[in-house]
Amino acid sequence: MREYSKNTLNKVKRGSNRAFYDVTKINDILDAGFVGYVSYSFEGRAICIPMAYGRIENKIYLHGSRKNRMLLSLIQSKQASITIMHLDGLVLARSGFHHSVNYRSATIFGSVKEIDEPILKEKALKCVVDQMIADRWESLREMNSKEFNATLVVELTIETASAKVRAEGVLDEKSDIKLPIWAGVIPIKQVAEKPISEVDLPEKVDVPEHVLTYVKQNNK
Amino acid sequence: MREYSKNTLNKVKRGSNRAFYDVTKINDILDAGFVGYVSYSFEGRAICIPMAYGRIENKIYLHGSRKNRMLLSLIQSKQASITIMHLDGLVLARSGFHHSVNYRSATIFGSVKEIDEPILKEKALKCVVDQMIADRWESLREMNSKEFNATLVVELTIETASAKVRAEGVLDEKSDIKLPIWAGVIPIKQVAEKPISEVDLPEKVDVPEHVLTYVKQNNK
Repeated sequence: MREYSKNTLNKVKRGSNRAFYDVTKINDILDAGFVGYVSYSFEGRAICIPMAYGRIENKIYLHGSRKNRMLLSLIQSKQASITIMHLDGLVLARSGFHHSVNYRSATIFGSVKEIDEPILKEKALKCVVDQMIADRWESLREMNSKEFNATLVVELTIETASAKVRAEGVLDEKSDIKLPIWAGVIPIKQVAEKPISEVDLPEKVDVPEHVLTYVKQNNK
Repeated sequence: MREYSKNTLNKVKRGSNRAFYDVTKINDILDAGFVGYVSYSFEGRAICIPMAYGRIENKIYLHGSRKNRMLLSLIQSKQASITIMHLDGLVLARSGFHHSVNYRSATIFGSVKEIDEPILKEKALKCVVDQMIADRWESLREMNSKEFNATLVVELTIETASAKVRAEGVLDEKSDIKLPIWAGVIPIKQVAEKPISEVDLPEKVDVPEHVLTYVKQNNK
């Protein structure tokens, strides 16, 4: 599948010139982050909650406590929607009307089920940790069975999705260009700062390569 | 009102030690950003969409096209929920189980109505632009009636809300402290970079004070 099919659920109507359905490009947006806003219904009201996720191919993994209201609700309804947005800039036009932001956003829709099978469950948990910071999992103490059993893992299979990207300068009315008003873009970036080691680390435990790499890749 | 009342909708059950309902602290989280994830129901499914917002006291303003599916749905259902999260750090523990993030998040619930009265409508639009970057609105070309009429403004009156904040180091199992595994926090920050002026600005239009201030306040 190269492109998600469009239906009433995911077809973008407003600003459709910025919309796309390309699987690879949507995966790029998913992989540029690790926190998504997961929507669910509670007592007839729609709510969304930020959650860490991991992606393997067309599967998104979420995890939480076995008593997590949202995860239990997703499993019950057998479906979920997750939205991810990266803010890339403030677009400051000469009129309020043309103010905007540069961004990359994706909304995905899929079917949901609990993952109980131990090998797949551990793979999903590894994927969530490594989505936050690559190569972290293999450096960790192994999960014990108490932790493993206390954790609920949910798998979302992406069925359809849409994305919108804005990545350009100000689009003002032609008649406004001559006005003595400053217009431009302020680029926005999420950056990592110097890692703060725990004070109780044993001697000779240095900041590992995967942490140094992350900070380097996410610095200005 | 100093604290929002708790009910089944907003009472935090998981990680309740990090939760609070204090109005001022929740306003601080709202005011530290300008993009919120607004939830709505479409054909029985919960979806959320990132949207710019502005806050004045206990009111949140959203705007969009008169044909915006989400805004029209909110007006029809007379209620909305918005979630905001600021990511402050990756919390890298010695076990996968204790991995976490530092963050400030708030979820608000409220009643919704359309704002049609011109003075309040303009005040709401000013508020949304100034929430993105303080003091911007007064430097702009005035809205014309075509733009004004094409814009739908929605007011959410906050009825209840909850927030969760994590702002600390790693919380590992005592038995894991001696392991030769690095643990610590990578602070994450959203920063502004140097503004990029439009190339077609008239001569002598310099980057204004409010833009310089924003970049200074949002730099590393």
